[in-house]
Order: sequence, then C-alpha cells, then structure tokens
Amino acid sequence: MQERTVYVDGIFVPESKASISVFDRGVQWGDSVYDAARTYNRRPFKVREHIERLYSSCLYTRMPLPLSIDEMEKITNEVVERNMPLVASDHDDMIWWSVTRGVNPPSRSVLDCKRANVIVSTFPVPFFNFAKPMMVGAKVVTPSIRRTPSQCVDAKAKISGKMNHILADLEAKGSDPEAYSLMLDINGNISENSSGNIFWVKGGQLFTPTSRNILVGVSRTTIFELASRLNVEVVEGDFTLLDLYTADEAFLSSTPYGILPIATLNGAEIGRETPGPTTKSLTESWSRLVGIDIVSQAQKCSAPATPVLSP
Amino acid sequence: MQERTVYVDGIFVPESKASISVFDRGVQWGDSVYDAARTYNRRPFKVREHIERLYSSCLYTRMPLPLSIDEMEKITNEVVERNMPLVASDHDDMIWWSVTRGVNPPSRSVLDCKRANVIVSTFPVPFFNFAKPMMVGAKVVTPSIRRTPSQCVDAKAKISGKMNHILADLEAKGSDPEAYSLMLDINGNISENSSGNIFWVKGGQLFTPTSRNILVGVSRTTIFELASRLNVEVVEGDFTLLDLYTADEAFLSSTPYGILPIATLNGAEIGRETPGPTTKSLTESWSRLVGIDIVSQAQKCSAPATPVLSP
Amino acid sequence: MQERTVYVDGIFVPESKASISVFDRGVQWGDSVYDAARTYNRRPFKVREHIERLYSSCLYTRMPLPLSIDEMEKITNEVVERNMPLVASDHDDMIWWSVTRGVNPPSRSVLDCKRANVIVSTFPVPFFNFAKPMMVGAKVVTPSIRRTPSQCVDAKAKISGKMNHILADLEAKGSDPEAYSLMLDINGNISENSSGNIFWVKGGQLFTPTSRNILVGVSRTTIFELASRLNVEVVEGDFTLLDLYTADEAFLSSTPYGILPIATLNGAEIGRETPGPTTKSLTESWSRLVGIDIVSQAQKCSAPATPVLSP
Amino acid sequence: MQERTVYVDGIFVPESKASISVFDRGVQWGDSVYDAARTYNRRPFKVREHIERLYSSCLYTRMPLPLSIDEMEKITNEVVERNMPLVASDHDDMIWWSVTRGVNPPSRSVLDCKRANVIVSTFPVPFFNFAKPMMVGAKVVTPSIRRTPSQCVDAKAKISGKMNHILADLEAKGSDPEAYSLMLDINGNISENSSGNIFWVKGGQLFTPTSRNILVGVSRTTIFELASRLNVEVVEGDFTLLDLYTADEAFLSSTPYGILPIATLNGAEIGRETPGPTTKSLTESWSRLVGIDIVSQAQKCSAPATPVLSP
Amino acid sequence: MQERTVYVDGIFVPESKASISVFDRGVQWGDSVYDAARTYNRRPFKVREHIERLYSSCLYTRMPLPLSIDEMEKITNEVVERNMPLVASDHDDMIWWSVTRGVNPPSRSVLDCKRANVIVSTFPVPFFNFAKPMMVGAKVVTPSIRRTPSQCVDAKAKISGKMNHILADLEAKGSDPEAYSLMLDINGNISENSSGNIFWVKGGQLFTPTSRNILVGVSRTTIFELASRLNVEVVEGDFTLLDLYTADEAFLSSTPYGILPIATLNGAEIGRETPGPTTKSLTESWSRLVGIDIVSQAQKCSAPATPVLSP
Amino acid sequence: MQERTVYVDGIFVPESKASISVFDRGVQWGDSVYDAARTYNRRPFKVREHIERLYSSCLYTRMPLPLSIDEMEKITNEVVERNMPLVASDHDDMIWWSVTRGVNPPSRSVLDCKRANVIVSTFPVPFFNFAKPMMVGAKVVTPSIRRTPSQCVDAKAKISGKMNHILADLEAKGSDPEAYSLMLDINGNISENSSGNIFWVKGGQLFTPTSRNILVGVSRTTIFELASRLNVEVVEGDFTLLDLYTADEAFLSSTPYGILPIATLNGAEIGRETPGPTTKSLTESWSRLVGIDIVSQAQKCSAPATPVLSP
Repeated sequence: MQERTVYVDGIFVPESKASISVFDRGVQWGDSVYDAARTYNRRPFKVREHIERLYSSCLYTRMPLPLSIDEMEKITNEVVERNMPLVASDHDDMIWWSVTRGVNPPSRSVLDCKRANVIVSTFPVPFFNFAKPMMVGAKVVTPSIRRTPSQCVDAKAKISGKMNHILADLEAKGSDPEAYSLMLDINGNISENSSGNIFWVKGGQLFTPTSRNILVGVSRTTIFELASRLNVEVVEGDFTLLDLYTADEAFLSSTPYGILPIATLNGAEIGRETPGPTTKSLTESWSRLVGIDIVSQAQKCSAPATPVLSP
Repeated sequence: MQERTVYVDGIFVPESKASISVFDRGVQWGDSVYDAARTYNRRPFKVREHIERLYSSCLYTRMPLPLSIDEMEKITNEVVERNMPLVASDHDDMIWWSVTRGVNPPSRSVLDCKRANVIVSTFPVPFFNFAKPMMVGAKVVTPSIRRTPSQCVDAKAKISGKMNHILADLEAKGSDPEAYSLMLDINGNISENSSGNIFWVKGGQLFTPTSRNILVGVSRTTIFELASRLNVEVVEGDFTLLDLYTADEAFLSSTPYGILPIATLNGAEIGRETPGPTTKSLTESWSRLVGIDIVSQAQKCSAPATPVLSP
Repeated sequence: MQERTVYVDGIFVPESKASISVFDRGVQWGDSVYDAARTYNRRPFKVREHIERLYSSCLYTRMPLPLSIDEMEKITNEVVERNMPLVASDHDDMIWWSVTRGVNPPSRSVLDCKRANVIVSTFPVPFFNFAKPMMVGAKVVTPSIRRTPSQCVDAKAKISGKMNHILADLEAKGSDPEAYSLMLDINGNISENSSGNIFWVKGGQLFTPTSRNILVGVSRTTIFELASRLNVEVVEGDFTLLDLYTADEAFLSSTPYGILPIATLNGAEIGRETPGPTTKSLTESWSRLVGIDIVSQAQKCSAPATPVLSP
Repeated sequence: MQERTVYVDGIFVPESKASISVFDRGVQWGDSVYDAARTYNRRPFKVREHIERLYSSCLYTRMPLPLSIDEMEKITNEVVERNMPLVASDHDDMIWWSVTRGVNPPSRSVLDCKRANVIVSTFPVPFFNFAKPMMVGAKVVTPSIRRTPSQCVDAKAKISGKMNHILADLEAKGSDPEAYSLMLDINGNISENSSGNIFWVKGGQLFTPTSRNILVGVSRTTIFELASRLNVEVVEGDFTLLDLYTADEAFLSSTPYGILPIATLNGAEIGRETPGPTTKSLTESWSRLVGIDIVSQAQKCSAPATPVLSP
Repeated sequence: MQERTVYVDGIFVPESKASISVFDRGVQWGDSVYDAARTYNRRPFKVREHIERLYSSCLYTRMPLPLSIDEMEKITNEVVERNMPLVASDHDDMIWWSVTRGVNPPSRSVLDCKRANVIVSTFPVPFFNFAKPMMVGAKVVTPSIRRTPSQCVDAKAKISGKMNHILADLEAKGSDPEAYSLMLDINGNISENSSGNIFWVKGGQLFTPTSRNILVGVSRTTIFELASRLNVEVVEGDFTLLDLYTADEAFLSSTPYGILPIATLNGAEIGRETPGPTTKSLTESWSRLVGIDIVSQAQKCSAPATPVLSP
Repeated sequence: MQERTVYVDGIFVPESKASISVFDRGVQWGDSVYDAARTYNRRPFKVREHIERLYSSCLYTRMPLPLSIDEMEKITNEVVERNMPLVASDHDDMIWWSVTRGVNPPSRSVLDCKRANVIVSTFPVPFFNFAKPMMVGAKVVTPSIRRTPSQCVDAKAKISGKMNHILADLEAKGSDPEAYSLMLDINGNISENSSGNIFWVKGGQLFTPTSRNILVGVSRTTIFELASRLNVEVVEGDFTLLDLYTADEAFLSSTPYGILPIATLNGAEIGRETPGPTTKSLTESWSRLVGIDIVSQAQKCSAPATPVLSP
C-alpha cells in the first residue's frame, strides 16, 4: 500500500517515517499549536482561513515560525496534491498542521527555542464516525469538566494540549460511548464540544456562544455566512442550559462533518424532529457551497477507515 | 560521540532515533502525561515515588498502560544503567517518562486507544541553568496568567500539555529573561512555578501552598521530610502575595536543583540575605541526603550542556 | 389495607388525608425545610440529631416554629409507634419531617407568616432501590450542574427546594438510569450526591469533603464515629476529581442505606474491588451499631415497595 | 362566604378543599415550577405568555405534563370565569399555576414520576401591599444574599423553590419591614427583586439587567413594548450599583403592580422626584394598555385583603 | 483649650497644625497605610504588635520608611506621653499611625518616591459610640458589598483606602443608623466588620474566619490568648451565614472597644441572651488583662467626645 | 519663585500652604474621590465632563458636597485663570479635584460627616514622563494583581484609594521601571492601565474593554468621538490577552498624554510599527481637536518638571 506524504520540518517524507524526536517540546510539554482543515471534492476548503488562525495561535504562544503564511499555504497545497491520488474518488482528506517549539534546548528555556517545527499532513476524513448521528442526531452530554478559562490559556488559541477536552469526552462517553461532550465554562455558560461549536434555533433565530470562551471555528464562521444568505439572524451571547433545553433544534459545527444535528441533551429530546428544518436548510446550503452532498457522502464513505499507521 | 539510549514503546533505541509518529495523540493533541526524576551521584533518586505519581496521572487520564509499575521501574533502571557511562563523573542525568495515548485511531475517539506509548529517556541535568541563582537567589515574577483550575484539568496530574506554564514563563521573562515565574490560582492564592513548588520561612515556620491547586512535587515532599528532621514546622494553606512579600526567606523546590533560594519577588527583596539561614540548613540536609554538595555540583558543572540533539 | 398515620399541623390523620393547602407557601414557593431519619430494627435511629438539624434549618430560614424540640421529638415518637404495626417484621420505615411557613398571608410577605406548618410522616425504606448497588457498587456520574453556593442558599441547611439536586440527577440518569449523581461546587470541589455524602479511602485514610459546601449528614457523622473506633483517620478538605479517580475505594453515606459502595466514577473503576476492605469494615460496624445486617436486610426486603399513595 | 374554585390535578374543587398530599414531591422536595398572571378589568392579561413561560420551566425541569398548552389555557380561562363573580367590581385577581412532579414514587427516583400535578387557582391581587410605595416609591435594599447562578439552577426557569429570594427578603426586611430586596448575582451584577425586575432611567435611556441571570418577567417584556411606543431606548446589560445610585429614576416591574417607582436605594435617594417623569409616562401607558388606572386602582382597593384561607 | 501633639514627618506639632500637603499621594491617591492602637489605664496597649503590623503593611506596599521599628516605637511613646496630661483621668486615647508615600514627585511615578511621610497622633477613644451596644449588643447587618479579594489588594494589609468598608457601612446604616456592617468575601464567606473581627460561640467552641480574607486584628489575637486561658478552643475556617445564625452567642473585637457583644444578625436574634456567657467571661478576662473594667469605662466615659478639630 | 493657587475648602491659598488635617478622613481612611483634567493651549479641556464624573463618584460614595456643579466649574475656572500666568507659554497644566469627607467626627461614623472638603489645584503636565513612549511606544506589562471587582468598589467611580493600581504598577515596574501596567479583571478580561484606558486595532476596527470593569475615561470618550469622525468602528466587549497579542496596533488613552502608542505587551511586539496608522490618524485628529500638536508638545516640554513642593 502506498503511503501519503507528510511535510516535517522542511522535508517531505512518507507517513510511516513522519515522526518527531521524543525530546521535542511538543512531545515533552505539549508546547505546540495546531489546526485542521479538510478537502471537499478533493479540493482544500478555506485553507487560508485555517492557516491564518494557526498563525494567530502562533503569535499568542510566540512560536518562532520559520515560514511565512504564503509559504505555509504553498507547502500545504503541495502536500494535498501529493496525497490526492491516494484518496478514493468519493472520499476526502483532513489536512493537519502541527507547529511545535522544536527540540528542547539544553537550557530548557522557552527563550532559547529559535525555530519552530512545522508538520503538515493529511489523512482520511473519519466519515464512519459521524455517518450515523448525521442521520439520527448526536446525543450530547454535559460533563462536569469545565472549559479552561482564558485567564489560564486563551480559548481562542488552538493549543495542541487538549487534555481538558479529552477529559470532557472521557466523562461524557463514560456512560454512553456514543455521547458527544458539551462543555460549559467556569461561569456555567455553554461553551463548546471537544472539537466543534454549538448552535441552536429558537423562534427563527440562530444562537451560539460568544467567541470569548470558545475556539472560534472556521465552520462556525461558515454557518454565519450561510445563515446570512438564508436571512436567519445569528445571536451571539452568554447562554445557559435552559436555552438549549428549550430550543426548537440544535446542531454542532466542525471541520470533519460541517453540520451535525443534535437529537438529545443529557437524554432529553431537543425540539420535535432531528434534524430540524433550519438545520436541514443550512446543511443543504453547506452542500451547495462545497459542491457535494455532505450527508450522502458520510453515508457512502462510512466504512471504517484504514488506520493511518498501525496503532 | 556516543548516544544515550531511549526506551520507546517497547524497544531501546539510540536517542537520535528516539521519535514518535506525528499522528501520535501526544503530538496531535498533547494527549500525554509525563514525569521527571534525576540521579544524584549517578543513582536514581526516589524513582519509585516519581513512577507512582506518573501512574496516578495515568489513572486520572485513563491511559491504557501496557506496563505494571514494577516493569516500569525495571525499564527505567535499565535506561539509567545504559546511559551512565556517557555521563561525566561529577555530572548527573535527568530521567524523563512520557506516556502518550498512542497513534490516533481512525475513529479519532479516545475510547478506541488501546495501548499507551511509553517513553523513558535521560539527558544531562541543566546545571548551568540554575548555577547562578543557586548562589545569588532567583528573581521571581508573578505573571498575569493564572494556574488552570482543577475543575478544568486537575493540577495534581502531571499533564504534558504545559502551555499554561509556558505562557506564564513567557510573560515573566518578557521583561527579564532571568525571571522565574510564580503563578497564582484563579482565586489569587500562590500556586507554583512553571516547574517547581514554592516555600517561605516566617517566624521560624515553613509555609507552602496546599496540594489542592499545585503539582505536588516529590522534591516538595522531600522538603517536608528534611524540615521534620530539623524540627521546622511546615504549614500548608491558601496564601497570598503579602505572605511572601513579608517572608524572612523563600525558595523554590524542583527535581533538577532540589532547592533554589529566592532573592526578589517582582523586584522587591525577600528577607535580609539570600539564601536565608533555614534555606541554607535545608540545602545542607538535602546534600547530606543525596550524598553530594548540590550547590558545589551546580557550580562545577555549570558549563552549557551539549544539546541532546541539534535543535 | 390499613393506612399509616401522619401528623399535620397539630393533628394526626391517615396518610390518604394528609395534605396541605395549595396556597401553603411550601407548595407555592418551596418555603419549607425538612429532615429525614429512619428506623433500624423498628426503632428510630438518632432521631434527636435529625430534629436538631431540622431546628438549625428552621433558625436559618426563620421558620416560626410552634413546637419545642422536645415536643417535636415526642410527636415523632408517637407517629413512629402508631405506624410500626403496619411495618413488616424485617422491614423499617423512613421518618420524614416537613416544616412549611404555612398558608401565604394576604400580604404575601414573609414577615406576616406567624405559625409554621409541621408535618411528620413515615413510609417504607426503599430497599429495592439500593439493594443491587449495595452488592455490586453504585455507578457515580458527575453532572455539569454545580451545587448551589452558600452565598445563595446555605448548603448546610436542609431546604425542601431541591431542584438543584433533582437537575443533577436528571443529567446523571440521562445516559444511565442507574447512575448516582455526584455534584461539584462552583469551584470544582467534590460536594455531594443528591441525597448522600461521599467518602473515599486512600493509603489507609478516609477522605470526605469539608462541611462548608455540603449538607452535613447524620450518616456522615456516624461514619466519623465508626472510623474512629476502627482507628481510621478521617481527613476533611477541599478535594477534586483526581483524588477520587485515584482512590483505593469509595462509598456514599445516607440515611436510607447507611453505606453504599461505589463501583465506578464516570465509567472508570475505583479501586480493585467493590466494596473495598475499609468499606466492608465500616459496613459491618454500622450493622453492629444498629443491631441488624444492613446488607442482608436490603437484599431480603428488596421487593418493590407498595406506593404510599397511588401516584 | 362563597369560595373560589381551584383546579387540582384534573378536577375543580373549592379553595378550602384545594390541597395536595404531603407525599407530593412539590411538598417534600420543592420539585415544582409555577407561574403567576393577573386580570385587569377582570380579564386575564397575557395569559398565553405566562403559560408559555410555564411550559419552558417544565421543559427545563422535565416535568411530565399531562396537558397541552391549549388545554392549560382553556382550564385557566375556566377557573378565571368561575371565580370572577366573587371578585368585587373594581378588584382583580391573581392567577396562579403550580406544576409539581406528583406523589413521590416508592423508588423516590425522578425517572419514575410519570404524571405532573397541575394546579390552577386565583386569589385577590394584594393591592394594599403596594398601594403606598406606588405613590411614594419603594425603599430598595441590597441584601448580602446573591442570586443563585444558572450553573446551579437556571434563573430563567420559574422554579417554586424560592428560598434564595425569601432569604433575600428576610435580610432586607430585617432592618426595615417595608424594604424591597434587590439581589445581585455572584459577580456583583444587579439581578432582580424577589418577585420583580428592575429598570432605571439615565440620560433618557432605560436600563435593565440582561436576561442571563434573571427571571425574564412578562411585565418586563411589557415595559419593553411600552418604551418602544414612547421612543425610549432600552439597554440590557451587566450593571453594577453605581449605575443605579446615579440614575435619574428607577422602578420595579412585576405582575401584581405592573410598575412600582423606587424612592431610595439602601437609604440613598434615587433621582430628584418619585416617580420620575419616564416612570410616570410608562405607568400611564400601562394604564392605557390594560384599560384601567393602575395607580388609582391600587389606592381604591388598598383595604387589607381577606385571607384566602385562615392561616 | 490645650492641644494634643502630633508627630508629622519628623517634627512634633500641635494638632491644629498637623496637616499634610494636598499634593501628598496619601491625599491624591490614598497611597498610604495606617494602624491604630489605644491606651488602657493611660498606658499604650500592645503598641509593638501594632507597629509590627504597620511595618508589614509598609513592606507589602513598598513604602520607603525613614524610621526603624525601634525609632517608631520611641516616637510613639513620646507622642503618648506628651498627650496624656490632656486626657481625663478615667479616659483613654486612641493612637494612630499614618504612613503616606509623600508628595507626588513631578514624574508622578511610584518609583520616584523616596521618603514616606510618617504621622503619629492620638485622640479620645470614642466611648459614647459603643457604650450602648456594649450593654445591649450590636445590631449586625450584612451589606451586599463584598470584601475586596486579596488578588486585588491583600486583606491582611492595613491600607488607608477603606472605601470598600465605608460603602459597606453606608449600606448597612442606610436602613438603621445603629447597624454594624459585616462583610462577606466574594465567595460568600464571613469576613469582617468595617473596623473589627467577628467571633461566635457554638457548642462551647469559639469560631472566627481564617486570616486569609481579613485584617488580622491585634484584638483578635488577644481573644485567642484569653480563650486559651479559659480553655475555650478557637476554630478558624471558612464560614457562612448559617453558622452565625445558629450560633449560641457572638461578638466583635476591635481596638476601641475590645469586645462588643452582638444582639442581632439582619434582625434575627443570635442566641438566648446578650452578651452570652462566654462573651462575658472573655470580657472579664480582657478587663483583668488591661487592668480596667472595659464595660464600666465605656458607660462612664460615654459623653459625646469633643471634636478633635471643628469639622 | 511664585506659587500656584489652590482652592481648599472654601478659600484660595498658595500651594505651599495647601494642606489638610491629618485627621481628615481623606488622610486617615482614603475616604475621598477625585478627578483630573488638563489644559490644552492653556484652556481647560472638557472640564464640565470631568466635573460631572466627579459628581457621579460623589453620588456613589454619598459625599456631602457643599457646592453645586456650576459652582464647582466656576471655582475651577478661577483656579486655572489664577495659575496660567505661572505656566510657560508652550506648557499646560493638569487640573486636579479632590473631595474628602472632611475631618473625622468624634463618633468616627460616616453618617456624622456633614460637609465634604473640596480641593482644586493645578500643576504641570508631566510631559517628560511620556515624551519618549509617545515616540517609540510604551512597554506594557500585565501584573498578577487584578482590578478590584465592582461588587467591592465600583470601578466606574474615581475613588482616591488607588492602592490596587499602585500595586499593579509596582509589580510591572519591578522588572522594568519603564513598564506601563495593564490590569486584568478577576475573570481575566483586559481592564485598564493604572491611569489610562486601552484600545487596539484589528482588521480596521477599534476595540476596547466595556465600561463595566473600568474607569470610563473622558479621554476614552474623546477617542470614540474621533474614531466616529474617521469612520472607524469601535467595539466594546470582554476581551482577553490573545486579542491584544494578535492586534495590528494598540494604544493607551489618558488625560495627560491623550494617546500613547503601545510597542510591546510583556515583551512581545504588537503589530508591525509603532505607532500604527490608525493610532497616528487618531493622534492627528486629537491634535486638531485641541489645537496643538500633542506629540511635538511632549517632546518640546520634556525637561523634567520642577517639583510642586520639595518632596
């Protein structure tokens, strides 16, 4: 089986050779940021937006980036082009950037790190993972774990160290492996899923948490654009669980699936049908935007993916 | 130049080959825990205590560990033994464990990770890094960044994702590269340095933050033991900056240096001399405990370390 | 079928007639406190302690109680005595006190309420409800709902308005109907189950949250007494989830069951066996104290209870 | 004296017979929600809006309602019609809905409650209670008790368990029985009175706390509508006490009185006259809306009400 | 009438001439700390302890003090000796230290302030102010204003800028001019009166808030000493209002009055009699310690004091 | 050398005689509010706005002001007119108001203070203090000290007791004497500099913290007006450090300097050049508004000011 190509610190290597030193600060201390996009119809979607957000994360964490935004985009496109021949015709790939602060210097001081380690890879979109909830709706559970407040690490930065989200998933999935976690912030406001944003519809308006305590998704921004075209007003704010329990419909947004309808919140049904009418309209608009029926693709491509590497 | 040996996921490899896949969750999502010990007189110090804390971190994060504690200790000792011939006679090595959740499975779900990736390595103690403050005292600065609260990620777990600490260091070192950061928790209680605990002396008693919002250091526990022998009472509690500004003396404790006296807090001198008399007594007790004069060693071995790998 | 007797506002009535006006503030505004005890071997257990706590709740909420503590105890004993003939020989009854502020006065002002409405009743201990987890351990889940902080309503008062706890149960049971909820306080400290306190064992010590943000159970105090006899030290403090995930064993304490071993926390097993050795010892001590094998009784009496009233 | 009729769990009964079992969860655990409207000119005012809010509270608390919204409205109208002949010609009645989760099932588990208990009643508007402050202004006092945060129980749900508000009233009235309490939320933002919302005027604009940490009053919404007609802009936000101390005028809004001018805040006069000009205009608009002079009615009907039931 | 002498910035002046520039940072920015003691039997009481606390406040705020502790004590004694002839034989004086950062330098930078301005004065103990509550008990009210958290300004420092306390008094006295305020901290824990600490008795133990969020009174420490002699255990901790509402007795401690019994909390009576038996014992012990009956003195000297200066 | 004139409590005095009693509550307890304006081209700038804000602070703190706003403005103008002959032709003066609650009455109760002490003075604008950063940009540092929350003392009131801000400056300047502090609030939102507000530019919009947790500067309002003329949208909100680290440009606003460009945040450069283009435009607009080139004036007048009084 042929391998995908990965860009690692200046060179292109086959994925089975794509590795970094165990002395890299990304491994030792999670001193790393990342971003993730995907292709639609085998073409990268909003790659520039993702790279700009990646550079914002780098600015916040002072990563000594050796590449300009344009160079990063060029390399990304090259990785995608090299790998597309390995992607089945109806499938698509995720695009993944990791930027670590490099091998820990002898001083182990952050000030002595002079060149960040940039990694660009692609791997199959895990369709089988969300094919079913895309039809019947996701089961959302609110764990006790709260989203890390921005006075500790800014939620708007896409930091690799996601243990906060992983613990939330572990809690939510502890009772039901199919559950999707939905974290609140430490003030009890609805925040985000471990890898997606949340929206709900009530009285014809679309609601979503403000950008203050969340990772501002590129998919979330896409929803704003689609809603605007559909003349659906989007209201950002600080919301609490009653708002979601009494919603007419609700969905998650994230890069792999775009839009994922929500069926239940902590076991209580949200709205009367899943997906609701606005969710359906937005999903259709999304499909038109990317030139592919995103629900059908998920169903068609839902065979379990081959591991990238034998784990 | 000969290389140290590293244990990576079941095998022993030279350090320049010690790497992990860029698809490992430790790289992609900081889904990893770690611990760090060191040798004194070329013998591992309190390795069992460090491994037990590592296993506590693994339990909290539900890492699917493939090794028992005894096996881990055995492997650790083997790594140390293999590497000792490469350590100069008056030097010592750090011992580092990383446990990642392994290569991200196709589902990308935490529940499908069945075998954690264990890494055990050693590298030189960075004496040159603390040789000077060991003599004249560290300059401690309190950044605006707060320690992540335990309702988000438990501070008592040694999670690899240390961006919270790294941001604190970046702030503190932004005005003075020699500064050591001291984080407060979100309630304003004194918490910890990015890689050490804090103690201070007042009226003959030793004070230190409670274990609730800190990583409970093995060095901290050692200080408790030494203080007990010196009949110095240790008081744990929630303390605020006035307590530290009005202290008679203060110091940090951490694995690499053991005890590091503090000279100033945000530019204000702490106490009348650095190190203070209790700090000196504890340092001498520490030296006796480990069979080596820890201050002298730091001075003697303070030449800049050779990089483990060219960064 | 003969009915139990209930004391309602000065008179003894059969349970099917035991009711209060829909204009009572206890109905309209949950303006009410309560307490609950049970019999062991058909004798009330620590009734005086429960009544004293009830009076503490009344003092805090300024309930205009028409009865002294002694009168309340006398009435309670009379209700129990009247009802015991209706209790099967191996069964026991719960004892329940409700104190409402009475019918809302025309002014609807709290200052115009002059005489609280006292209700004393008994009903079967719901053995069938905890018979199974008493053998195999409870499945504990931490909901996102936080315990109301004492600056809003003091957690140490046993207020009838338990919507906070009920919402916690609804969340926890939303994924698994058998789950027991465990609430954290708004700072992320472990607080309490909707109707019980929590304990865990680690390194031979017994740990439990401080009394600050919990309802201080009479069963909790009983555990303190039994632990003291077994020379097990009890440590009260502010604890977080890592403490519980890494415990050797854990259990809940509450009036109906006394001690209930915990099997899992959010799906993760606690300790190596359920119940653990200390939990077993405490359970045996409890049985000796009350003169009945509490585990056996639960098994024997686990047939679904007859409803008090057809709901 | 003839009695009003009350709807209780499916049947119409005279008020002296309108009661619920002491084993009802509404009595034992305040497991209940409610709402309250009133008539103006003997006609129900915005009953549909109140019932919709009641259903929102039921959805949040998962009350197993046996009635549709339309059925509830029909029953409500019937109760009002039956009772109107008992209401003096210039008087009006309050309309009160309570929905409890019914008699506690033998398991005492929330999941086994299958049919909520619905109560609909009316009783005289307590005009004498606010007749005086309607003329001279209310004395508002901020107690130390904070409004329960929505991460514990959502402030937007009208939960029966109002001990939080009752404690606030007890504090505020402890020094002055005529005082109206005004609670802050736990972040110190102005929240609400125990049974009303607050507004103030400054520089021609109308200010009021956001809907996040308050019960969103139907009267509050009415104020928004009236202000819109008067071309007065309403600004919702997070406000603190300085905003209110420096206001030009202020008032409370609630179902019984509509608008109640505020004279003082913690003893300090608000503005130059009570009521202020905007308050007066809004009061006049309100009177026009409901077809009755609400200030005059309060004065005319201010004889102490006859108790519904002898308390 | 002869004037008392005041020490101002190095010289002794009559009180009517004791002034500081309006350009002093103490006037412009409250950049100042203070402390206050009193005489008993015309002799300074615990002056050294007060001066040490003053120096702790100076250390925290980095005041450039021109005097050693010994010099400060000597000057203080001289001020007291000069003024004692002006004090009536059965009266006593307060002793007051203010330390400002001096006249604002042209740069207006805190770093350019090189010499603090020290003021030492005395004035009559305001006996008439607490003579009545010393007999019948103080009326304590909890305002909505919270004690400033130590992450903003450390509560353990005696900062001159007391607007936080003054606002608390204004709120509490807004409904009842005789009220004493009792502030909570932002977590709802009982903190302190605007110029005193609080204690209460329950079950034979004495309770008081921990030193974390309060100004640790010298009178508070004196209570600890007296309690120790009476074999009354003192428990420090985080307490909430229920603890105080259900206390057997309660009192305030402060320099002017020593011990002041509490009669009511927000209008609710505390305990059965005022003062309670333990409060009485402590008061008697205090009187013995200072060689004067402190209750009698307050009654005898309760004529309104002559103003220091015509205000 | 001739002296400036100061208005103190009803009379005009030379600045060397302008003093207040050490028994004034402004000295003893920081019981005082203040405001500060300046002249441009020797004419007072927005004096009315400053006085109105001063009166708002007085209302909040219940200062018993003996002067109407018009009287205050008249006195202020007189002080300025008297002092202008002493101001060099190209210089300008600060205008300073202090309002204290007067000499502490014998009762020491806030309720017995009947007449506030009003002080109006002028002194040279400290140009030399900001001349350099006006050219090269300020170095901004975020200290650990948080802005006092409004539930303790309302941030919108200009209270004299600025120890919170002074401690922030001491921390920030502890590592670099040239640093400007930037405080966060206790939730981690960007708040304010010790004597200025903050703005930043991103994507063509101007951002600044909401008025909730800051002192709302008159300069800040001026920026809003200038931005409006330049068609630059101003967005108020709750922002965190990432927002500022990723800004295109940033600046402070305050009375003495108007606009001060920011070069670095905790050592990281903000944007590409200092000042940025929008900052430059706003500075030019400001200069046009006040009829003087504010950057040039600062450079020309940057000789160290003569002390008002020898400190």
